[in-house]
Amino acid sequence: MSEAIVLLSGGLDSSTVLALAKERGFEVVALTFDYGQRHRRELESAKKVASHFGVKKHIMLPLDIGKYLQSSLTMKSKTVPVGRTRGQIASGIPDTYVPSRNIIFLAIASSIAESRGASAVFIAANSVDFSGYPDCTPEFMSAFQRVIDVGTKSGKLGRSILVEAPFLTMTKGEIVREALRLEVPLRLTWSCYEGGRKACGRCDSCQLRLQGFVEAGAEDPMEYEVRQ
Amino acid sequence: MSEAIVLLSGGLDSSTVLALAKERGFEVVALTFDYGQRHRRELESAKKVASHFGVKKHIMLPLDIGKYLQSSLTMKSKTVPVGRTRGQIASGIPDTYVPSRNIIFLAIASSIAESRGASAVFIAANSVDFSGYPDCTPEFMSAFQRVIDVGTKSGKLGRSILVEAPFLTMTKGEIVREALRLEVPLRLTWSCYEGGRKACGRCDSCQLRLQGFVEAGAEDPMEYEVRQ
Repeated sequence: MSEAIVLLSGGLDSSTVLALAKERGFEVVALTFDYGQRHRRELESAKKVASHFGVKKHIMLPLDIGKYLQSSLTMKSKTVPVGRTRGQIASGIPDTYVPSRNIIFLAIASSIAESRGASAVFIAANSVDFSGYPDCTPEFMSAFQRVIDVGTKSGKLGRSILVEAPFLTMTKGEIVREALRLEVPLRLTWSCYEGGRKACGRCDSCQLRLQGFVEAGAEDPMEYEVRQ
Repeated sequence: MSEAIVLLSGGLDSSTVLALAKERGFEVVALTFDYGQRHRRELESAKKVASHFGVKKHIMLPLDIGKYLQSSLTMKSKTVPVGRTRGQIASGIPDTYVPSRNIIFLAIASSIAESRGASAVFIAANSVDFSGYPDCTPEFMSAFQRVIDVGTKSGKLGRSILVEAPFLTMTKGEIVREALRLEVPLRLTWSCYEGGRKACGRCDSCQLRLQGFVEAGAEDPMEYEVRQ
């Protein structure tokens, strides 16, 4: 049985990727980063989701870089944008962008993968219904795969770790349908950029998630402050 | 004045790269990782070298990944190879290889660079007199530059952070000559894989350094247990 490292934030998409990696027959090691996010809610969700799926191991890695990064996701002094339409969300790179986040996450994941002899790294990046983050695109994923191919020992030996981004070109509605099909425990996940008792319903991440459920013709069982 | 992030391990090569970045007119932010190395000597050297050159800022970043990585540089239960000839050192990838180390270091460095508005990241990678690490080659450096170009906001805006590896194709003798020219405080640096009172003189890193001084026709002022 082959092992895969799954980058798990605790959100809907990464929880669904985890379920998919299991369905594909991988033994799953979940990897979650504590990088100075605005709140702890998603870390708690990651723990619950990993436990729900009975992963082989869940690595929760402190990454003390939040204070050096310019992003509204790591700076308490900044607010995250709310109430934007899908068109507005798609129009540029918002200040929730965390510079090089997926580059860092994939680099560490592939390092751990190579050390453990795992064969793949799964990431829930999506380039359709997303916030325009440049490290979520097909172009980026293939550039990163090339780095792994030429920059690691296993790559040089022709046994490259594969970077798997199964949701890269799906719509959010399609991802929601995958979540439902794979029986992802939706209530345990956390997608909201804020860490309130209920999801805010107004940040880009909540908006994209809610639109996904509408597209999938399903009801999101999460509690929201507002549903727009 | 443009700012550069310099990856500083505390060894001869990275200390010399730092001096070179200063000579080229950059304001330097040094970045050192505490990733569970075998010893603290090189971290102390990094501090002294950064202080010697009066850097703008020295970031010492804890990276709690050592326990997940398969390498004799992070596992106390493993020994590092000693007494190898240059031919043996060049013959394959030894178990001092830390999977994806430069990928992780460059990812975090470019993230901090983008957040600070720095324009370059300097790394002392060398692919001539080296231990065959795949993340030290021209092929790897250009693949990583591509990741930065397509995977970051500044890259998408045509203001990519440049990954500068000025020693990539130099011999160790040429690097030593650069160190002497730039008046790098050689006694403050630490290249040895072990953390003794004196450098061991027998590990691959000591061997390469000593050979570099021989090639440069100079004397290494470091104290060694043995000089082979």
